[in-house]
Amino acid sequence: MTTVGILGGGQLARMLALSGAPLGLRFLVLDTAGDACAGQFAPMVVGDYTDQAALAEFASKVDVATFDFENVPAESAQWLAQRVPVFPSPRALAVAQDRLAEKTLFRELGIPVPQFADVPTREALDAAIAAIGTPCILKTRRLGYDGKGQFRLKSAADADAAWAALGAQAATVGLILEGFVRFERELSVVAVRGRDGEFRAWPLTENWHVDGVLSASLAPAQTDAALADTAHAYARKLAEALDYVGVFALELFCRDGELLANELAPRVHNSGHWTIEGSETSQFQNHLRAVLGLPLGDTRMLGTACMLNWIGQMPGAAPVLAEAGGHWHDYGKSPRAGRKVGHATLRAGSANELAAALARVGQALGRDAQVAPVIERLG
Amino acid sequence: MTTVGILGGGQLARMLALSGAPLGLRFLVLDTAGDACAGQFAPMVVGDYTDQAALAEFASKVDVATFDFENVPAESAQWLAQRVPVFPSPRALAVAQDRLAEKTLFRELGIPVPQFADVPTREALDAAIAAIGTPCILKTRRLGYDGKGQFRLKSAADADAAWAALGAQAATVGLILEGFVRFERELSVVAVRGRDGEFRAWPLTENWHVDGVLSASLAPAQTDAALADTAHAYARKLAEALDYVGVFALELFCRDGELLANELAPRVHNSGHWTIEGSETSQFQNHLRAVLGLPLGDTRMLGTACMLNWIGQMPGAAPVLAEAGGHWHDYGKSPRAGRKVGHATLRAGSANELAAALARVGQALGRDAQVAPVIERLG
Ligand SMILES: Nc1ncnc2c1ncn2[C@@H]1O[C@H](COP(=O)(O)OP(=O)(O)OP(=O)(O)O)[C@@H](O)[C@H]1O
Ligand SMILES: Nc1ncnc2c1ncn2[C@@H]1O[C@H](COP(=O)(O)OP(=O)(O)OP(=O)(O)O)[C@@H](O)[C@H]1O
Repeated sequence: MTTVGILGGGQLARMLALSGAPLGLRFLVLDTAGDACAGQFAPMVVGDYTDQAALAEFASKVDVATFDFENVPAESAQWLAQRVPVFPSPRALAVAQDRLAEKTLFRELGIPVPQFADVPTREALDAAIAAIGTPCILKTRRLGYDGKGQFRLKSAADADAAWAALGAQAATVGLILEGFVRFERELSVVAVRGRDGEFRAWPLTENWHVDGVLSASLAPAQTDAALADTAHAYARKLAEALDYVGVFALELFCRDGELLANELAPRVHNSGHWTIEGSETSQFQNHLRAVLGLPLGDTRMLGTACMLNWIGQMPGAAPVLAEAGGHWHDYGKSPRAGRKVGHATLRAGSANELAAALARVGQALGRDAQVAPVIERLG
Repeated sequence: MTTVGILGGGQLARMLALSGAPLGLRFLVLDTAGDACAGQFAPMVVGDYTDQAALAEFASKVDVATFDFENVPAESAQWLAQRVPVFPSPRALAVAQDRLAEKTLFRELGIPVPQFADVPTREALDAAIAAIGTPCILKTRRLGYDGKGQFRLKSAADADAAWAALGAQAATVGLILEGFVRFERELSVVAVRGRDGEFRAWPLTENWHVDGVLSASLAPAQTDAALADTAHAYARKLAEALDYVGVFALELFCRDGELLANELAPRVHNSGHWTIEGSETSQFQNHLRAVLGLPLGDTRMLGTACMLNWIGQMPGAAPVLAEAGGHWHDYGKSPRAGRKVGHATLRAGSANELAAALARVGQALGRDAQVAPVIERLG
């Protein structure tokens, strides 16, 4: 009997547990909140990620540990790694936690990135704006997610406002300035690397964000094969450089047909949720297979798929359930503004069928705006 | 928040809970054994199915109840149904629990059955043998499963031995004598009927048994379309007659191209496990959708699939996981002779690919005999 420990008990941990059960695995989730939604299907240890007693209890009960939450303090991950195998490694996690370290690595590996500069001080911000130009985005180096900890600058005149918003964090989590990319598309590669170095990637996915939060994903992305090959090659290079084990996502901007790497998510990723029904093996099961040293599953697609995120509160399920390829995912969370509470995946045999299903669902749920860009792309 | 109660906590309850989680459901399992495998992923009430206190606790915590175990005493099901909605209904359950009632209903509905006769006494056994002829099978009317509670008679001379083995049960669970069917194939229809009467069936499945226990299932069954249509029509007629709600399986023998109904399983069924990966919607999720009055999911197949049962103990997972369409299901049970501990499903785009995958897996696991009849059929 193998018990997999998961740091963080949100929907990613929940879906990991549900997809790992058929492998005969048990799970233990560590989360600060006793009502974390993974706790509905897996036993929990409730405690802070820095709480030694909680970590010790967790470590004593699991055979291997992994993450639902990428911002677990590096020291906690290292402490754990001295007691049980931890995948991905604390080193890979540390790189992914820091936008500066991450982008520096991308550049070293020959993966194109938007312009960026470290911003340790107010003066450094002016210098960075002068070097990079506007528009640009000031971001916290660490602990950002879902577009939080970001400030967009239209011109150099916005520097004071940006500093007022984020300057205090320069000394704690650090700041980075990035050139604003006028991208045509946002894409992601969701990929997995095994303990033995085997690498597999799912088809390239296109993503749409609203207010910095993922709204919809389409797979396969409607791009030419060369672009997908390039994206997959970047993902592989990155995984090998980090000796990465498990599933990760590489988020990319596509501008003038060129790819620029935005960030590395060192875990199963929202843009890979469609793999549950849309692929032979889901990202969740392949993450567990990788972490446990089992053979990786096939990442081929079954048709074409679109994932729609439900933010804040769940809409009615019936219109999605009534679709032939409609699949529902309610994370069992209570509603709250901005919170990811569930998603739906629509799967179809062709782009036309998928577009028609999206149109019906968008209409029935009053969410035409959410499905419109996907339908346009499929069109 | 809806909580679904499940009477019985075996692998069926476990797979119901895992496939119902994405619908945002919670589960509560009632089982006599505290270590029932569904308890690894759902909270439990431990108690006997006739234990009033356990039933009352269970009833007070669930919004709707259903079954993993079909031999829950009819009185308990009725008691529950007075307190919470129970699907399938206690009446449908009562018919399915009794081979005599079941076969009588089949005959009334015009569904062909093997010859059968009630055997309340030793004299009735002689009369039944005289009427039906040999070979034949004496079975308990109630509480049989996986071929248990059966005695095969080659000739009338075996009557004493049959009575010695099962006669004592004539007064408790009852006995039935059935003509032995020299079938070419065993088939099953797994189907679902909603609260609103909507009926859907998965493609006809062919099954192979070893020692009375299911060993392998192949879907779609390699038969002509007319036979499948007939089987589906029988299933629909039966479901309508019983006002059945939920998933059920109708087990059929095929002899000289004619179908004879063997039994009705009033629950998700082992011969439908392939639907998890082989169909757009699994039998588990559709059972829950039916029970909750949600729209039923599509039952179309994704390619062709074979399920292999693991009995007694789990073999090594690697050969199945290494197959592109290989999926593993370990129920988290401890090994025990004759116990269903897990299964594997192989999915493929064509019969040829499936046969090749089965051959590799059979060879790697030393289970050529288990896969041989399926490969022969696919050939
Ligand atoms: N340099 C940039 N140029 C243009 N748009 C950007 C840039 N950086 C971020 N964005 C937009 O903001 C979104 C969120 O940014 P980013 O991925 O850096 O933040 P995050 O908080 O880590 O988000 P997530 O948790 O979704 O990964 C991006 O998907 C993109 O739409
Ligand atoms: N009348 C019959 N003629 C020939 N074979 C039979 C007959 N009845 C049963 N069998 C064989 O025995 C197997 C098990 O019988 P049956 O389905 O009646 O028992 P069970 O204990 O309810 O099994 P299960 O739990 O698998 O449904 C059948 O699948 C079939 O292979």
